[in-house]
Amino acid sequence: MPISDTVRLGDKVAIPHPSLVNLYGCTIGDESKIGAFVEIQKNSVVGTRCKISSHTFVCEGVVIEDGVFIGHGVMFTNDRYPRATTLDGGLQTEVDWSVEGTRVKRFASIGSNATVVSGVTIGEGALVGAGAVVTRDVPDHAIVAGVPARIIGDMRQRVEEPVPYELLGDLAGT
Amino acid sequence: MPISDTVRLGDKVAIPHPSLVNLYGCTIGDESKIGAFVEIQKNSVVGTRCKISSHTFVCEGVVIEDGVFIGHGVMFTNDRYPRATTLDGGLQTEVDWSVEGTRVKRFASIGSNATVVSGVTIGEGALVGAGAVVTRDVPDHAIVAGVPARIIGDMRQRVEEPVPYELLGDLAGT
Amino acid sequence: MPISDTVRLGDKVAIPHPSLVNLYGCTIGDESKIGAFVEIQKNSVVGTRCKISSHTFVCEGVVIEDGVFIGHGVMFTNDRYPRATTLDGGLQTEVDWSVEGTRVKRFASIGSNATVVSGVTIGEGALVGAGAVVTRDVPDHAIVAGVPARIIGDMRQRVEEPVPYELLGDLAGT
Repeated sequence: MPISDTVRLGDKVAIPHPSLVNLYGCTIGDESKIGAFVEIQKNSVVGTRCKISSHTFVCEGVVIEDGVFIGHGVMFTNDRYPRATTLDGGLQTEVDWSVEGTRVKRFASIGSNATVVSGVTIGEGALVGAGAVVTRDVPDHAIVAGVPARIIGDMRQRVEEPVPYELLGDLAGT
Repeated sequence: MPISDTVRLGDKVAIPHPSLVNLYGCTIGDESKIGAFVEIQKNSVVGTRCKISSHTFVCEGVVIEDGVFIGHGVMFTNDRYPRATTLDGGLQTEVDWSVEGTRVKRFASIGSNATVVSGVTIGEGALVGAGAVVTRDVPDHAIVAGVPARIIGDMRQRVEEPVPYELLGDLAGT
Repeated sequence: MPISDTVRLGDKVAIPHPSLVNLYGCTIGDESKIGAFVEIQKNSVVGTRCKISSHTFVCEGVVIEDGVFIGHGVMFTNDRYPRATTLDGGLQTEVDWSVEGTRVKRFASIGSNATVVSGVTIGEGALVGAGAVVTRDVPDHAIVAGVPARIIGDMRQRVEEPVPYELLGDLAGT
């Protein structure tokens, strides 16, 4: 039951502890890996060869492209002004809110315990530091950290050997 | 077993994954909803029509009033100087600490990955931003964010139509 | 299955919810307590009489000495530049990264939702505030808080009666 029939699982998706996850209505790409205590909601997409680490929550409206690393305890959000109830006091249901989408572009990495506020785009190959709170768009290849997250570097100057993105075109499917 | 017999559950409480929660000795009000990977300890209270989202921890001494939204991965605490052991080196037990209580007043919302330090009161209709660390009281209707959390706005000026609290008296039971 | 045969459990280790943890290849010392929704990876060590609270992730390369308190939702990390894929586009495997170790010295306490960046040492009896992001070494007995974590006090001046560490030598095994 914790992996609903409504999940579209690609080939060779690794979920070592299927009884300790909660996945429903989402799409998981080929060869991706999903850790323990992960929840992935409906209408979200995880690309191919991604790692979604333990304790992470991926909400409706999030699109994670190919080759993305999501650390442990990362929380995505889809509503800047969440509320439990409607103005007439009833419990909110789906018709009472609109989802604000978030996109994580290919080969980006998001550090553990980071929080991603709704409506942002995290650029290709970017790195979000552990514990950061991302409140605005992150440019391609940028390193951001802090609360709120600010640019502190560029991944192209940190890796010993720059990532040959052109070689990765097949994986990215573009 | 993960929902102990000691839990006092109200009517129509929704717990979609009862095998993936850990609730004991707490009170959950009518029509509230509890997500996956949530732990709620004894001597804590959740009001009516609340949402307690996935990955959240509600500790002993926390009182959550009616109509409150708690995001994902929110951590409450009840001890500013926690320790594993007593001064004589033994493992601490309940008699070795005193719980410092926390109250979240009605219709407040707490964003995902927020941390609430013990002993604070979060005001009615207030909003705690995602990833914030709340270290002092939050006034009614205030919007707070950051580490430590500071006031950045007022919910009464953000919602298109102010919440008619007077209409909600029945729900709040006051 | 969530407690692998590869775990070396000491005497009187308390794991109230063995079906809600994910432990493998690690060592847990005598009389320690492990909460729900905790993952502890291989090649990590938890000492004696430690508390590892719910929702916490202890990764490979972390050494937690005796008498340490780890709060709820604490995330350790072991790689400052994590990536999902190798430069040739394949999913990373163990041979593709080197673990950067972290040590938490005896009687330290780490507050809930804190993040510990890889490669740091947290000193004896130190206190890491809730929600802090630790990016550098923490001196013995220091109190640190914030993002990034900075020294804000000294535990020896906060406790009513200083901890008699000399009496605790037996427990610490040194």
